Amino acid sequence: MAIETSNNTLQQKVTELVDAGKKDQLSELIETLSCKEVTHLIVHLNQEEQTSLFKLLSPEQAAEILEEIPDLQAVYIIEYLKTKEAAAILDEMESDDQADLIMELDNDEAEAILQEMLPEEAASVRRLLAYESDCAGGMMCTEYFAFYEDQTIRSVTEDLRDNSAKYAAYKLKYIFVISRSGVLKGVLQMQDLLLAGMDRKLSDILVKEISYVDHHITLDELIDFFDTNDWFGVPVVDEERKLVGVVLRSDIREAQATRQTVEHLESQGIIGGEELRTMPVLLRAKRRLSWLSVNILLNIVAASVIAINQDTLSSVIALAVFLPIISDMSGCSGNQAVAVSMRELSIGAVYPGEVLRVLRQELAVGLINGIVLGLLIGMAAFLWKGNFYLGLVVGAALTLNTLLAVCLGGTVPLILKGLNVDPALASGPILTTITDMMGFFLTLTFASMALSHLGGL
Amino acid sequence: MAIETSNNTLQQKVTELVDAGKKDQLSELIETLSCKEVTHLIVHLNQEEQTSLFKLLSPEQAAEILEEIPDLQAVYIIEYLKTKEAAAILDEMESDDQADLIMELDNDEAEAILQEMLPEEAASVRRLLAYESDCAGGMMCTEYFAFYEDQTIRSVTEDLRDNSAKYAAYKLKYIFVISRSGVLKGVLQMQDLLLAGMDRKLSDILVKEISYVDHHITLDELIDFFDTNDWFGVPVVDEERKLVGVVLRSDIREAQATRQTVEHLESQGIIGGEELRTMPVLLRAKRRLSWLSVNILLNIVAASVIAINQDTLSSVIALAVFLPIISDMSGCSGNQAVAVSMRELSIGAVYPGEVLRVLRQELAVGLINGIVLGLLIGMAAFLWKGNFYLGLVVGAALTLNTLLAVCLGGTVPLILKGLNVDPALASGPILTTITDMMGFFLTLTFASMALSHLGGL
Repeated sequence: MAIETSNNTLQQKVTELVDAGKKDQLSELIETLSCKEVTHLIVHLNQEEQTSLFKLLSPEQAAEILEEIPDLQAVYIIEYLKTKEAAAILDEMESDDQADLIMELDNDEAEAILQEMLPEEAASVRRLLAYESDCAGGMMCTEYFAFYEDQTIRSVTEDLRDNSAKYAAYKLKYIFVISRSGVLKGVLQMQDLLLAGMDRKLSDILVKEISYVDHHITLDELIDFFDTNDWFGVPVVDEERKLVGVVLRSDIREAQATRQTVEHLESQGIIGGEELRTMPVLLRAKRRLSWLSVNILLNIVAASVIAINQDTLSSVIALAVFLPIISDMSGCSGNQAVAVSMRELSIGAVYPGEVLRVLRQELAVGLINGIVLGLLIGMAAFLWKGNFYLGLVVGAALTLNTLLAVCLGGTVPLILKGLNVDPALASGPILTTITDMMGFFLTLTFASMALSHLGGL
Repeated sequence: MAIETSNNTLQQKVTELVDAGKKDQLSELIETLSCKEVTHLIVHLNQEEQTSLFKLLSPEQAAEILEEIPDLQAVYIIEYLKTKEAAAILDEMESDDQADLIMELDNDEAEAILQEMLPEEAASVRRLLAYESDCAGGMMCTEYFAFYEDQTIRSVTEDLRDNSAKYAAYKLKYIFVISRSGVLKGVLQMQDLLLAGMDRKLSDILVKEISYVDHHITLDELIDFFDTNDWFGVPVVDEERKLVGVVLRSDIREAQATRQTVEHLESQGIIGGEELRTMPVLLRAKRRLSWLSVNILLNIVAASVIAINQDTLSSVIALAVFLPIISDMSGCSGNQAVAVSMRELSIGAVYPGEVLRVLRQELAVGLINGIVLGLLIGMAAFLWKGNFYLGLVVGAALTLNTLLAVCLGGTVPLILKGLNVDPALASGPILTTITDMMGFFLTLTFASMALSHLGGL
């Protein structure tokens, strides 16, 4: 509760400073905030307050904030700013972040902002926008050191000194050497410049053995690349080996983390990207419903198994107590196996083709846990009604259905991945629909077989 | 399927090289593999093959592999190697990775390995082991440049040259300056050494304004620190401001990613850390059961609501079809809200104290989605049995229960976090138990109220 108070104070203070138009104090205050605090502050200002705040901040500081908060929120803010203001802020961002935001805007709005941006910045954004967002071209940034092979150390040093303000923001400290037509020729480290004579040409001292990647390679390939190399970044080239950008290790790590987050949210039924509670209620409700309405149909299909066996159920009404338990527990067991498979897929401990191997590995676990859970629920049923057969029916159903759920849960993600269907999204619904149906079917079928011993329960 | 083949070939090739004792070829082959490929290879060798492989590799290469594969797997390998071999490999690892692995071993085994390690390496591990694993002291590494303030540039440069092999592995390129008693005095960058005269002392050129953190600060505080600073690493000091290690930005990012993974696995019922399918079957079954057995008890508690209202159910047997649907759908809606809250907590968009704010934000979504889902299921019930009241009963029950589930799902993680209970672990079971109970209760209570209109369904 203390946090709420201190936070409200921060929010109040910022709103007061905004209202009073105290730029400097505002900027100082914001400078002291951590990334989380900035996020919390911004998402809890209303739209009008957000706009006033961003109008008061310098474009540099505004850009910094937009890079720290979720993209979703940043896009809302950009949309409400005047085109000129938005362009000035975007000018200050790194090229990959610029492209990420502009991609989310309406075409008209994006075009208007690009028109207002510095020509050089706009051009680099347009180049990035031409790529798919999850390939090297879409994730690269265009802030990097590149000089021509026929330049002397002296001319490079002078350029570095003259543009030191601009270069300070460059994250990758390698110097790439290119031909006059832009073809990547080699690389240098900063200290190589210090050690060589001033009149030597770059072509004399460059390192020719250099790793580079094609502009169309995918995030997965980039992850592998950085796994096998120690570089902080890698140059990206086109078909003619012309240098078009650099991909940073840190950006790939971040993309990897984002993908993991998206997968987690998808597996819990938040699809189409992140949801922030500051999004409009109708949008949030609609996005969540898109997933729920598929699920309710699947649920109805599964429950139809009960409807079909309604006669058995009406003779043994006690079974109605166990149907939800059996379907829910099988779902839990299956989801554990799904989680392990998703994790093993992501670290490479299993490949999509290894369905049979996983099946073998899950069979034993499913059998053990099925028997233990079956005994538990069987005993509970027996103790409740004093009828051995009731215990046997529900115990056997849960045992078998757990085995099935664990085997399915372990293998379904691999099969979906192999079929190029997103396993994070589809594994859960597929799993629970099948295990629900089978759970109901097994329980009611076993019961109908033992009906003469179960009458009147 | 292609992947399985190519992978089996790799595994075969490695096993053949191991059997033939061809060290060099083996080492060359392994050098070309990505992190994922190494993980896949290792987890699919049996224990004997793993041991033979690690005996053939150089300690450096073995150390590199242990750093790339999951800790869990690395610990198994260490346990099966001879103490001497394990110690030689651990000697080659970075201090924080050494400590992570040794912490997982039995005390006796850990002590035996520490005895065999280089005294200097063992001492640094013991220092790290004294800390909690999620504070700066437990996450720092002890490979960093530190020189005394009264040393000259010349003596430092000589030392750098003489020990260049050792220093090449140091990730943080800042040079820390300490007093003879070890107190942190300032920092230098490599290039500062190049620019100053050889006979000047470090105390003349050091930068005194330096950020540092206390050895007891937590992962959360470190995340905030790196959010507000651009450094690649930060020095860690004890109560007397003596330098004891450095924490790297990359290690904090990794710890953050690990925590996210653990939370995801916990929320799916994999608790006590990661599970690999190469772990012994009984251990895997037992760990999964620990979670399932709590769940089955909660399920029985929830289902007891059905048992209590058995009379209503036996008069309207059709309701048995809807009970699992209502409980399952409410669980889905609630889990969506849990996922959004967990995400908002992790990015700082919401603080644990803001329960009322979240409640307000979820009420509207819960109501909208509740009404839509309620109408859907109500219409399905009406179409099936042609009875308006059946539709009304199940529709109203699902509407109300969805509202409840969404409100609970949004707020329970915040409340648990505020109470310092792990929300990833506990939110799911608490949520589904309450929404199951309430779903059964609402359906059967509404039905008993409308019983005269429902007879014989």
